[in-house]
Amino acid sequence: MLLEAIYHQPKRNWAYTYDKDTVRLRLRAKKNDLTEVHALTGDKYAWERTKELIPLTKYTSDSMFDYYEGEVKPPYHRLKYSFLLKNGSEQIWMTETDFQANEPDDPGHMFQFPYLHPGAVFTPPAWVKDAIFYQIFPERFANGNRDLDPEHVEPWGGEPTPFNFFGGDLQGVIDHLDYLEELGINAIYFTPIFEAKTNHKYDTEDYLRVDRHFGDADTIKRLVELCHTRGIRVLLDAVFNHSGKTFAPFVDVQKNGEKSKYKDWFHVHEFPLDVKDGIPTYETFGFEAHMPKLNTENPEVKAYLLEVAEYWIKEVGTDGWRLDVADEVDNAFWRDFRKVVKAANPDAYILGEVWNESSSWLQGDQFDASMNYPFTEAVNRFFVKNVMHAEQFANSIGRQLSRYPLQASEVAFNLLDSHDTPRLLTLCEGDQRKMKLAALFQFSYMGAPCIYYGDEIGMDGDHDPGCRKCMEWDEAKQDRELFTFYQKLIALRHAHPALRAKGSIRFLQAREGGSQLVMERQDNEERILILFNRSEETAIIELEAGTGDWTELFGENYRTAKEEGILAVELPAYGYAVLSTDIV
Amino acid sequence: MLLEAIYHQPKRNWAYTYDKDTVRLRLRAKKNDLTEVHALTGDKYAWERTKELIPLTKYTSDSMFDYYEGEVKPPYHRLKYSFLLKNGSEQIWMTETDFQANEPDDPGHMFQFPYLHPGAVFTPPAWVKDAIFYQIFPERFANGNRDLDPEHVEPWGGEPTPFNFFGGDLQGVIDHLDYLEELGINAIYFTPIFEAKTNHKYDTEDYLRVDRHFGDADTIKRLVELCHTRGIRVLLDAVFNHSGKTFAPFVDVQKNGEKSKYKDWFHVHEFPLDVKDGIPTYETFGFEAHMPKLNTENPEVKAYLLEVAEYWIKEVGTDGWRLDVADEVDNAFWRDFRKVVKAANPDAYILGEVWNESSSWLQGDQFDASMNYPFTEAVNRFFVKNVMHAEQFANSIGRQLSRYPLQASEVAFNLLDSHDTPRLLTLCEGDQRKMKLAALFQFSYMGAPCIYYGDEIGMDGDHDPGCRKCMEWDEAKQDRELFTFYQKLIALRHAHPALRAKGSIRFLQAREGGSQLVMERQDNEERILILFNRSEETAIIELEAGTGDWTELFGENYRTAKEEGILAVELPAYGYAVLSTDIV
Repeated sequence: MLLEAIYHQPKRNWAYTYDKDTVRLRLRAKKNDLTEVHALTGDKYAWERTKELIPLTKYTSDSMFDYYEGEVKPPYHRLKYSFLLKNGSEQIWMTETDFQANEPDDPGHMFQFPYLHPGAVFTPPAWVKDAIFYQIFPERFANGNRDLDPEHVEPWGGEPTPFNFFGGDLQGVIDHLDYLEELGINAIYFTPIFEAKTNHKYDTEDYLRVDRHFGDADTIKRLVELCHTRGIRVLLDAVFNHSGKTFAPFVDVQKNGEKSKYKDWFHVHEFPLDVKDGIPTYETFGFEAHMPKLNTENPEVKAYLLEVAEYWIKEVGTDGWRLDVADEVDNAFWRDFRKVVKAANPDAYILGEVWNESSSWLQGDQFDASMNYPFTEAVNRFFVKNVMHAEQFANSIGRQLSRYPLQASEVAFNLLDSHDTPRLLTLCEGDQRKMKLAALFQFSYMGAPCIYYGDEIGMDGDHDPGCRKCMEWDEAKQDRELFTFYQKLIALRHAHPALRAKGSIRFLQAREGGSQLVMERQDNEERILILFNRSEETAIIELEAGTGDWTELFGENYRTAKEEGILAVELPAYGYAVLSTDIV
Repeated sequence: MLLEAIYHQPKRNWAYTYDKDTVRLRLRAKKNDLTEVHALTGDKYAWERTKELIPLTKYTSDSMFDYYEGEVKPPYHRLKYSFLLKNGSEQIWMTETDFQANEPDDPGHMFQFPYLHPGAVFTPPAWVKDAIFYQIFPERFANGNRDLDPEHVEPWGGEPTPFNFFGGDLQGVIDHLDYLEELGINAIYFTPIFEAKTNHKYDTEDYLRVDRHFGDADTIKRLVELCHTRGIRVLLDAVFNHSGKTFAPFVDVQKNGEKSKYKDWFHVHEFPLDVKDGIPTYETFGFEAHMPKLNTENPEVKAYLLEVAEYWIKEVGTDGWRLDVADEVDNAFWRDFRKVVKAANPDAYILGEVWNESSSWLQGDQFDASMNYPFTEAVNRFFVKNVMHAEQFANSIGRQLSRYPLQASEVAFNLLDSHDTPRLLTLCEGDQRKMKLAALFQFSYMGAPCIYYGDEIGMDGDHDPGCRKCMEWDEAKQDRELFTFYQKLIALRHAHPALRAKGSIRFLQAREGGSQLVMERQDNEERILILFNRSEETAIIELEAGTGDWTELFGENYRTAKEEGILAVELPAYGYAVLSTDIV
């Protein structure tokens, strides 16, 4: 056994509560190095009476490690534990302080999860497990009220620049709710809708006012009500890392300098405010002078922003917040933010923008999920860019699963593109076959998928501003076949709980150098295989057939044969198939 | 290189702020596997302009791993980083997602410390770096006011039982402040002083009242004032995990059952309250029916306890709290506790009772330190019980250092015994030579040492109740030679900053199977060697002499010789020496 590879540490993704009675323990070991892992568990005040050996099973793997996980239900809500590691006949025990040959009998030296506090259980809103998001960039989705158009508005469908306007607004969204319902989505994430100067509105001028070109408080209220009637949840975008340059407190600091009563609302290094060699004399988002960083550690600023957070949830009935540049805001702010938001709406979904591995925010005290860009990249590298083979892809996905508590993976926000990336079809260089494989993976994986507006009808576009084109409403110009594909994907996911949070995940085929991938999702009722052929050649994938019959759920031009216990599936170039069998 | 052994993860002890401008990065590698470690650091929005290669040096080691650490000062308070690992000519880069051969150029794939928030820096009170604690169990320290004696008080110096009383009180402490000042300590930790039924007072009846047998609010106020005049800080004990059975809210629940308005102040599984087969029908400390667990997640309970925490700091001017059974109270409670306590006294020291590895509480949002029992045990196993050899001891200490951010180690609460363990002299089976070695290590190591009352005059006693004997005030019965030894130890530590937080730590000799240990402490002015011979044989320890002269600071019956660049120190059985040289 390679002991240097063994890793476990209480808390975070290694020992965490799943519900008020359950602790999940996770342990890392060198890949294929162990044959069995157990946890010896018990109550420290009644060790002999309560001690129990709990099995851990392989939860996931990456390129170097296997991750084992098991569940414990401590009878008195206190838990001490050690691990028993086996490789065939070889075995060793692991305590908090050491590895040892004999079974440890002193709970004092063991790891501990001192007490399960019901209030500390990380409980993301259950609806997200079944959510399918649709991201809308309001200025570019639909113009429903010409009276609100900005000056110099350009004709719908023109070339987007970083600065121009096309008049999209909230009424436009209301006008197209039938479309969204037809597509099948049940949640919308809106990029910012509050008063701001730019077309993207990430430079807030007034946090308590809907942008005048988008509508007003009544419009968003009506929009949310109408969405709710259709079973569609609504997430708004909170830009709390920085404000816009025209935000009243910042205007005051620009005007009154050190004498401004708002001077500590920002991080000013030098008065008067200035930009020297491209570097503002105050902290900003990036080096953007028009986006001054808010001092969220200042109690006044914090109180103000928390009021904003509460206001829109209570006033409009929204279902949560997406948090812009969330990782650059202090954690104490987010902890209080969570309290305020969950008090206003216990079912609110808190989604932070963090591009990196984000486990430190996903412990139950801050966010429910982060924008899952590591997922985006892995899918892109395997299905789209062909720079990763199947084993590497499975390892990359496994590594991601290993980083988070299970409940975080269940409500991950899995996107393939956004207003901050090129569109998926453009990444695919127009090859819809690749796009479909990527989307099928997204929709059959754990976590909530999100469609960036227009992807479903074949819109393309490179990095901002290209990815922020006006939505195409002319049906003749929409790719209706692609729309149907997305409809089917969505329906498939809605119809099969095994594809959602309830299903376990295994890769049945993901070979080194391989272009074929088989993912298994399974719950108590159903076992589903999702097969992908990311290559220009026809591929035959052979799997153990099992005893039940296989139902063909989804796919095109593929063939299956079952013979002598082997299920053979022939997939055309860039083909895919989804097969299902009942669990008996 | 053994890549499976490499470990790094943002946050906790691996990437943390040391002050508002500094991030410390730590990386683990297989022991002796690397020759050089660097971090490639920069600002993600200005990567090319800001990127810099920062050296990491070996911070500490344990039995399997080396831990490297280095400091970065990100110019714009944002940090992205990767590591460069070298073993001679072999080298590899480590990003957040992978190991790779080439220098990474995309900060997107790197680890990040998104933003340094000044308010999030873990800043324990600076005074603790120089503190020498003395722990007092008030019922057994001194009887200064016979009028307060409990009924059936027994004559001072009698045999302690779990239930008897000897009349110790706060006036008794006031009466002996000269003694404490003579000894040289500058901080006192009192076990609980609030109204309770037992002699140990861990079963609080009234959190807002000093125990009637100890004195009253005026006595503790006067005591704290007198201590402060002498430069002695005072820590009280907060028992917030559970109350006593006679705590009014619990009395109410016992009486009114489900109808009690306090029923949610506790964790009751079944009314009426009962004990079945030794298991209370409500949650308790351990299975102690007279110590009902408080529901600290209940906002009323929380508000009440936080008021208590604030009250005594403000009312009496105490310097912090020791927190009983701190690990079984919810973390959200402690986060708010820290805010309240630090608002009342920014210099307050928050010391949690956690017997395990406690890094998850020592991140700046909860405690400043924990009762360092892992330290206690390592010292005990090497110096006292002889069940560990020198290399194992050094590894054990190294492992402990590796678990915490540096500032936590600087203010660790390093005890060798307490009211919850046998006394040090009893652990040593009366062999003062062992006791002295252990104490010398404690006083020359990083973190605040604590003396359990009476250890310094040779008191012995086994586990509770033996360790809770009455303090011996008859000088004829005190071991005055031992007292002088402790006085010298304390004076030595006070005189040499290198022995305190400012000094780095290295083990210059700690051999496999060895009984000799040489620890080096070094700051910018001084290099100090502390040499120990834990054996019955005379030992000669040879070290590189360096260029400066060596001053003999402390020790008995040892001899030194310097010849041909070698410093030889001959230590008698269980001998020790402390030598110093100036840094030029």
